Amino acid sequence: MSVDLRSDTVTRPTPGMRLAMAEAEVGDDVYREDPTVRALEEHAAGLLGHQAALFVPSGTMGNFCALRAGAPVGTEIIADTEAHIVTYELGGLAALGGVQTRTLTGLADTLELAAVEAQLRAFPGGGTYNMVRTSVLAVENTRARDGGLVWPLERLDALRAITSAAGVALHCDGARLWNAAVAQDIPPRRLGEMFSTLSVCLSKGLGAPVGSLVVGDTDHVERAREWRKRLGGGMRQAGVLAAAGLYALSHHVARLADDHRRAGELARTLAAAAPGRVDPERTETNMVLLDVPDAGAFAARAAADGVLVGAAGPAKVRIVTHLDVDDDAIAHAGKVLAPLLADLPAVAA
Amino acid sequence: MSVDLRSDTVTRPTPGMRLAMAEAEVGDDVYREDPTVRALEEHAAGLLGHQAALFVPSGTMGNFCALRAGAPVGTEIIADTEAHIVTYELGGLAALGGVQTRTLTGLADTLELAAVEAQLRAFPGGGTYNMVRTSVLAVENTRARDGGLVWPLERLDALRAITSAAGVALHCDGARLWNAAVAQDIPPRRLGEMFSTLSVCLSKGLGAPVGSLVVGDTDHVERAREWRKRLGGGMRQAGVLAAAGLYALSHHVARLADDHRRAGELARTLAAAAPGRVDPERTETNMVLLDVPDAGAFAARAAADGVLVGAAGPAKVRIVTHLDVDDDAIAHAGKVLAPLLADLPAVAA
Amino acid sequence: MSVDLRSDTVTRPTPGMRLAMAEAEVGDDVYREDPTVRALEEHAAGLLGHQAALFVPSGTMGNFCALRAGAPVGTEIIADTEAHIVTYELGGLAALGGVQTRTLTGLADTLELAAVEAQLRAFPGGGTYNMVRTSVLAVENTRARDGGLVWPLERLDALRAITSAAGVALHCDGARLWNAAVAQDIPPRRLGEMFSTLSVCLSKGLGAPVGSLVVGDTDHVERAREWRKRLGGGMRQAGVLAAAGLYALSHHVARLADDHRRAGELARTLAAAAPGRVDPERTETNMVLLDVPDAGAFAARAAADGVLVGAAGPAKVRIVTHLDVDDDAIAHAGKVLAPLLADLPAVAA
Amino acid sequence: MSVDLRSDTVTRPTPGMRLAMAEAEVGDDVYREDPTVRALEEHAAGLLGHQAALFVPSGTMGNFCALRAGAPVGTEIIADTEAHIVTYELGGLAALGGVQTRTLTGLADTLELAAVEAQLRAFPGGGTYNMVRTSVLAVENTRARDGGLVWPLERLDALRAITSAAGVALHCDGARLWNAAVAQDIPPRRLGEMFSTLSVCLSKGLGAPVGSLVVGDTDHVERAREWRKRLGGGMRQAGVLAAAGLYALSHHVARLADDHRRAGELARTLAAAAPGRVDPERTETNMVLLDVPDAGAFAARAAADGVLVGAAGPAKVRIVTHLDVDDDAIAHAGKVLAPLLADLPAVAA
Repeated sequence: MSVDLRSDTVTRPTPGMRLAMAEAEVGDDVYREDPTVRALEEHAAGLLGHQAALFVPSGTMGNFCALRAGAPVGTEIIADTEAHIVTYELGGLAALGGVQTRTLTGLADTLELAAVEAQLRAFPGGGTYNMVRTSVLAVENTRARDGGLVWPLERLDALRAITSAAGVALHCDGARLWNAAVAQDIPPRRLGEMFSTLSVCLSKGLGAPVGSLVVGDTDHVERAREWRKRLGGGMRQAGVLAAAGLYALSHHVARLADDHRRAGELARTLAAAAPGRVDPERTETNMVLLDVPDAGAFAARAAADGVLVGAAGPAKVRIVTHLDVDDDAIAHAGKVLAPLLADLPAVAA
Repeated sequence: MSVDLRSDTVTRPTPGMRLAMAEAEVGDDVYREDPTVRALEEHAAGLLGHQAALFVPSGTMGNFCALRAGAPVGTEIIADTEAHIVTYELGGLAALGGVQTRTLTGLADTLELAAVEAQLRAFPGGGTYNMVRTSVLAVENTRARDGGLVWPLERLDALRAITSAAGVALHCDGARLWNAAVAQDIPPRRLGEMFSTLSVCLSKGLGAPVGSLVVGDTDHVERAREWRKRLGGGMRQAGVLAAAGLYALSHHVARLADDHRRAGELARTLAAAAPGRVDPERTETNMVLLDVPDAGAFAARAAADGVLVGAAGPAKVRIVTHLDVDDDAIAHAGKVLAPLLADLPAVAA
Repeated sequence: MSVDLRSDTVTRPTPGMRLAMAEAEVGDDVYREDPTVRALEEHAAGLLGHQAALFVPSGTMGNFCALRAGAPVGTEIIADTEAHIVTYELGGLAALGGVQTRTLTGLADTLELAAVEAQLRAFPGGGTYNMVRTSVLAVENTRARDGGLVWPLERLDALRAITSAAGVALHCDGARLWNAAVAQDIPPRRLGEMFSTLSVCLSKGLGAPVGSLVVGDTDHVERAREWRKRLGGGMRQAGVLAAAGLYALSHHVARLADDHRRAGELARTLAAAAPGRVDPERTETNMVLLDVPDAGAFAARAAADGVLVGAAGPAKVRIVTHLDVDDDAIAHAGKVLAPLLADLPAVAA
Repeated sequence: MSVDLRSDTVTRPTPGMRLAMAEAEVGDDVYREDPTVRALEEHAAGLLGHQAALFVPSGTMGNFCALRAGAPVGTEIIADTEAHIVTYELGGLAALGGVQTRTLTGLADTLELAAVEAQLRAFPGGGTYNMVRTSVLAVENTRARDGGLVWPLERLDALRAITSAAGVALHCDGARLWNAAVAQDIPPRRLGEMFSTLSVCLSKGLGAPVGSLVVGDTDHVERAREWRKRLGGGMRQAGVLAAAGLYALSHHVARLADDHRRAGELARTLAAAAPGRVDPERTETNMVLLDVPDAGAFAARAAADGVLVGAAGPAKVRIVTHLDVDDDAIAHAGKVLAPLLADLPAVAA
C-alpha cells in the first residue's frame, strides 16, 4: 500500500468530477464566452460576499493578479515572513510586478497589533519624497508554512479595522480558505467579505485538477483580468476546468472535516509514539508537522515504506491529508511513521 | 444558421477529444508527475526536432517563457513591427520581463536581409558601455496580423544563418506553425529544428481547449519552467488538458488543409463579388483579410446576418476558418458576406 | 597637436564656468532648498515654454524620468529605430520601467505620416483585452545616430497634430535641442512648447560638466521627481552643477553656430578629398559622418595622428565639433583626416 | 540664530572644498577619462580593503547598483525591517530591479543568529521548483532609523561567517560607515573588507555636496557600472564632484568625533530636562532621537524658535549633528529644545 501525503495538490479528479468536465458547456473564455467559467466565477464571488471573480490557472497567479491589481509599481505589500507569496512564488511580486515586500514575523499571532499598525504608511495626503508607500497587507489563511493553522477571527477583524483606518487594502491568500471555514464552522462568506481581495484555490483540498480564483469588486477584478492576460493566464475553452471547480465547490467542501479529523488522529498517534516531535494542538486543519533531525532522510525512509511525506525545511516534515486518503490509508501511514519517529533520539523535555 | 469566423480559438473540443480528456491518466505536473503532460511534451519536442518541451496555458505564456529564458533583463528582442508579441500581449516582455523590443517593418518579406543583419548587436567580445545587446530575433509563422501568410523557407534559412553568425538566438512564435507546415507540405520538424526555441499552440487550428508548448533544448526549457512557475502557469493535474493536445496532434494536423481550402474558396468568392477588397493570392492558410471602410460597422452587419467576423484594424476585417466550420458553413458565410461587400463603394483600380 | 572630436561630451568647464560653480549658492536639493538648482529649473522651463523643469544627472535619466512619468507599465513608446533611447540606454525603458518600445524606421523623414498614425493606439474609450496601448511617441532632435540632422518644423507640427488627435503624448529627446534651434534660427521655445515633455542636456554642446533637465507641466515633473529619487538621481548641494548649467545657457547657446560652421567646413574639406564618403548636405549641425570600410581601423589611424574620432558603427565614423575645438583645431583635423580618407578605395559612383 | 539639525545632508561645501573643486582636473568619466574620479575610486577602494570602486550620484543609487549587480531578478535580499533600502528608497529594488526583499526585525541586535541563518536559502546545489533564492544579506552601519547606532563588530563578524557558509553575499549600506569607524576607533578597512560590497556616502557626515561610492571586487564593480549607466547615473566631467569627495575623505573623517561628542552632549542636556524622552546611552554617533507625543508639532515649535529638527515618525524626532554645526550652535539648540521637551507631559516611569 502506498500513501501520498506530500500535499493536497496531488489529488486526482473523481469519476463524478470527470463526468462534469466531459459534459461541460464551453466557449472562448478570453472572449468571456465560456458559460461554465462564468458560472463558476459568479458562484465563487457570491460564496465569498464579493461582486466578481476571475478564474486563473494557479494560486500563484491568483495572488499575483489580485495583489498587483491593487499595488502600483514602487509600493509595498506587507506580509508574514513565512508567507507563501514571499517564500514559494519565486519572487514574482518583485520580479514581474515591481512591488516591494516588507515581511513581519508573527503577523498571525505573536506580533502586537500596534507594531503592525506602525508599518502601514499609505500617505492618503500625498506621501513624502522618499518613503515607500504601503498599498496592501496580505494574510494567508490557513497558514501553509505553519502547518495549516487557522487565523483567529478576532485578529482578522482587528487587522481589517487597522488597515481600513490606514487606507491600506487587505488581501487574503486563501489557497486553503475552505479549510479555515470548515475548521471554524462558519460560512466562507464570513471569511471573504472582510477582505479587499482574495485568491482561493480549487486544486488543493477541493480536489479539482487545475484552477484558482481572484475575488473582489468588479473594478479590481477587471484590472486583475488584464494582468492575467499579460501573464498568459487567459485560457480558451477553460470551462472544462471550471466544471471541475464547480463540482468541487458543491461536493468537496464539507468533506474537508474528514481530512481534518484524519490529520488530528495521525498527529495524536505520532505524538504518542514520539513525544515532543509533533504537537496535536497545532494540527487544526489538514496538516501535521514533525520535528526531526533530518527531514530529507526521514522522508526517504518513509518513502521506502510506501508513505510519501514532504520536507518543509531541513528539520521539518510536512504531512497533508486530502481527498485521496481515507481512514485505512491514514491508519497505514500511522503504522509506518510511528516507529520511524520512535527510532529517532528522544526530544529533551 | 450562425457561423463564427472570428478566430480559430473558438473551437470546442470534439467528442473524441472529450473522451481522451475524460480517460487521461494524471498526476501533479508541478512535481513533474503527470504522465500525460510528459507524453505530450516528449511527443512535441520530437515532432519539432528538439530535446525538450514544456506545457503552458497559452501562447502568450509560451512566447514569454521561451523568450525570457533566453533574453536577460536589459537586452533586446528584434521582431516585426506587426508581431503578435509586440501587438497583442499587453507589453508583457517589457512589463514582466524587462526586455526591450526593437521592431522592424517587413521582416518577413520586404526588408533587405542586410538591414536585419545591421541591427543584430550581440557583442560576443564584450559590448560597449551604453549600447543595448540583441539577444533574440523573433519571427512569427504563420503571420497573424498579415492574414496567415507563410514564411518562405529560404528566407527563414537565411535568417538562421545571419543570426547564428551574429550570436543571436532565433525564436519562432509558432501559434500556427502547423498551418505553415501543412501549407508548405513539409514535416513540422523542418520548421522546428532551425530555431533556437519555439512556442506552438494546441488551441488554435488544432482545436484543443487550452494549451501551448515551449520547445527547445533541455537547459533552455528548464529555465522556461522556472519562469512558468513564477508567472503562475504551473498547473497540477494538467494531464486532462494535455490529453486534448495529444489527441489534436494526432487527429487535427492534416485536416488543416481543409481549413486552408475553405479560406481560399471564400476569398475567391468574395474577390469576385467585390474586386480589390480581398486578395486571394494572399490567402495562404486559414485566414482571409478584407479591406473595408469601417471594420466595426461591417462586422456588426455580418453579425446581424449570423456570420461573426473580427475587426483586425479600423479598416481591416479578419475571417478565420477552423475545425468547427464545414463546407456548408463557408458557403453560407460567402452568401452573407458577398452582398455586404458588394454594397460597399467600389475600390479604385 | 591633439584634437578630440569623438563627442561634444568631452568638453571641460571654462574658467568662467568654474568661477560660477565656485561661487554658487547651494542648499539641499533633495529638500528642494538649493536656490541655484531652482533658478536653473525655472529658467529652463521658461525658455522652453513649459511650467516646470527638473535637474537630473544625465540625458539618459532625463529621458527615463520624462517618459516613465507618462508611460505606465505595460504601455508602449513609439520611437525611431535608430533613436538614442532604444540604442544607447541599455534597454532601460523596459529593464527599469516595464515599458515596451515599438520602433519605426524613417520616423523623421521617409515614413508616411499615415503609417505613423496607424500605429498610435491610445484607446481613449477603454482598449481591447489584449492590444498594447500607446502612451508616448518620442522624437529626437537633433538626431544623434543620423549625424545631427534637424527635424523639419512642419513635420514636427504634423506629428504634434497626429498625436494630439490620438491622445498620445509627444516627447522630445532634446539632448541637442539647442543645436536644432540655432541651426534653424528659431527660439528654443518654438521647439519646446509643442511637446508634452522634453529632456534637454547641458553637458553636450553647451559644455557644462554634468546635467540635464526634464521639462513639462507641473504634475508631470512632480512624477518625474519621484522617479528621479527612486533611480538615485536626487543630489544634495547640486547647485554647484546647476551653476554651470545656468552659465552655459547664458554663454554657450549662440556660439553653437561656430560648431556648426566648423563641422560644415570640415565636411566640405573631406568631401573634396574623398568624394562619396561624406555628404556635406547632411552636415546640418555639429556632426560629420564618414562612410569608411572599417571604422575602428580608421579611428585608430586618426588617433595615431592625434585626431580622435568615434566609430558609430562598423563602417561609420562620427566627428563632433564642440566648445573645446577652435578653427585651428578643425584645420588640423582636416589635414590629418583628408589624406586618410583619400587613401581608402574610391567609392563607386 | 538658526540651527539646522534635520540631517547631515544639509552641509554646504567649505572654502577649501570649493577650491579643490574649482581646481580639479577633469575628463569624460563615462569614457573613464576623468582623472579625479579615478583617483577617488582608487583611494576609496583601498581605504575599504577592496579592489575597485565606482562613483555614483547618491547613496540610493550606490545601494541599488551594488545590490542589483549581485542579486539576479527573482532572488531576494534580506534586510532589517527598518533598513533605509526598504524604507526610504521608494521600493526601487523591486520597482527597478525585480528583486524581492524579506525583512527581519532586530537584525542588528535582538534577533537570534540562528533565526537569520534559517532564512538564508542560496541553494548552491540547484534550488527547488518554487522557493525563492536568497542572494544577499544587507546590513546598514550606522543604522539611520535607529538613531545612528553602530553595529557591534562581533555581530558583523558572525553574520559574515553565516552568510559565507550559506553562499549568500553580504552588503553594507555604509551611508555613515565613517561615523561607525570613528565611533569604534577602528580603521574603515576593518569595516569594509568583511563585506562583499558596500555603498558609502561622501555627502552626509563628510560634507561633500554630491556623491557616493560602490565598493567591491573588480567584476562586481564593472556590473555595477553597467547598472549606473542604465539608471542614468553616468556623469561626464564628474571630477568637479569627486574632488570634493577626495577632500572630504582627507579632511572630514576624523572630525566626525566632534559631531559625536556634540550629539552626546545635547542628548544628556535634553535627558536631564525631560527624563525618559531621550536615551543618551543610545546616542552613539551623530544622531539623537526624541520620543514626543507629536513629532510634527514639536518640529514646528522648534522651527519657530530657529532650530530645525526632523520628524522620523509620528512620535519620533531626529536630530543630527554635522559639519555646519559647532559648539555654540549645539548649546543654542539645547537651550531651545530643553524647555520645549520639559513642557511636554512627563513620561511614566
